[in-house]
Amino acid sequence: MEEVASKVLSTKPTLFSYFRSSASWRVRLVLALKGIEFTYQAVNITKDGGAQQYSEDYAKMNPMNRVPALFIDGKCLGESIAIIEYLEETRPDTRKVFPSDPYLRAKARQLTEIINSGIQPLQNLEVLNKIEDELKGDRKEWAQHFIKKGMNAFEEIIKETRGKYCIGDEVSIADVCLIPQCFAAERFGVDLATFPNIKEIRDSLTGLPEFIAGDLKSQPDYVA
Amino acid sequence: MEEVASKVLSTKPTLFSYFRSSASWRVRLVLALKGIEFTYQAVNITKDGGAQQYSEDYAKMNPMNRVPALFIDGKCLGESIAIIEYLEETRPDTRKVFPSDPYLRAKARQLTEIINSGIQPLQNLEVLNKIEDELKGDRKEWAQHFIKKGMNAFEEIIKETRGKYCIGDEVSIADVCLIPQCFAAERFGVDLATFPNIKEIRDSLTGLPEFIAGDLKSQPDYVA
Repeated sequence: MEEVASKVLSTKPTLFSYFRSSASWRVRLVLALKGIEFTYQAVNITKDGGAQQYSEDYAKMNPMNRVPALFIDGKCLGESIAIIEYLEETRPDTRKVFPSDPYLRAKARQLTEIINSGIQPLQNLEVLNKIEDELKGDRKEWAQHFIKKGMNAFEEIIKETRGKYCIGDEVSIADVCLIPQCFAAERFGVDLATFPNIKEIRDSLTGLPEFIAGDLKSQPDYVA
Repeated sequence: MEEVASKVLSTKPTLFSYFRSSASWRVRLVLALKGIEFTYQAVNITKDGGAQQYSEDYAKMNPMNRVPALFIDGKCLGESIAIIEYLEETRPDTRKVFPSDPYLRAKARQLTEIINSGIQPLQNLEVLNKIEDELKGDRKEWAQHFIKKGMNAFEEIIKETRGKYCIGDEVSIADVCLIPQCFAAERFGVDLATFPNIKEIRDSLTGLPEFIAGDLKSQPDYVA
């Protein structure tokens, strides 16, 4: 965290990220899709009980003590969806990640929220640690329940909206949320074959250069 | 649910809502702020183990089996934040609930997501039932933990952005999310005096006619 002060003085945005964090991953994908160069600042959310994200310096940037945070245009933003909406609004000359049709925009945001508020908050590290350590529950079973429920709903909706990707043939925020969610699903033992539309779209997305650039394995803090 | 078919044929939007659902409450507030007339269709999410929201008819409208859903412009939308963004985009002549400045819009969305994805998914009925019934945990303790964490972060951010309301002196989506969250906090025994900025803003909001119209007590399905 000592490097924070120097990094945030650069003109390029600085992304505070953890390679496996699905919310960080979403923002990395959108930065790549929009071709916005940025400085990567790793925040290790698993080391020393999350000491880095709970440090006083980091809390000033993001009082939720979470990754990602994005320092951009002289200000600091938190919450992946808020960051992505900001990038879309303030960089109108870059590739759009929201469909132009209002109804399809709403569907893209509905799909986004199914993952962002419907699944991810229930499969994140802090919650699973509480389930296992405090309540002696089975973290995998807990995570699987919410992942299956959310991905079922996602699968139903994209049957109507999909083309090559979740909303027609253009990559959108829904795809950006889907990719890290698919990784998390498989990590917790959910078989994607149960969701044939999701699986097909996932397979179309993973080869795109922007999705390779944003992938967890491409990050400087990646550990196998 | 038998009435669904007839209701959705009307030209006014139909809101599928449960009086105490905080996500339904947000949409009610935005409909009131924008002066959009709508038909209220109660969905009782607590009766018969949630039979209404899990019915086949309802799942067609919202595959997440949750309230709210909004039938509008001949289509059905789910997820409160997606619905609110849609209303803002498609009703440009109504009162805005997002600030016009891009940075403040981002802060409004960040505050929104602190509640929408940071707190609400962890205090909702299904999760608390699992905590209590399956894991024999204390639902109140669980809810309090996440409510306090999220509201602490919310309080920190509004110290910078607030005026009479969360973002300056105009009511925004952040206030719309805050009001039902304050109700939930008090319901789970969290003392709002710990968050003086939140409390002051809450007290400024609750007397506004739109907030009275959207309040849980003003709904036809309200039960004390």
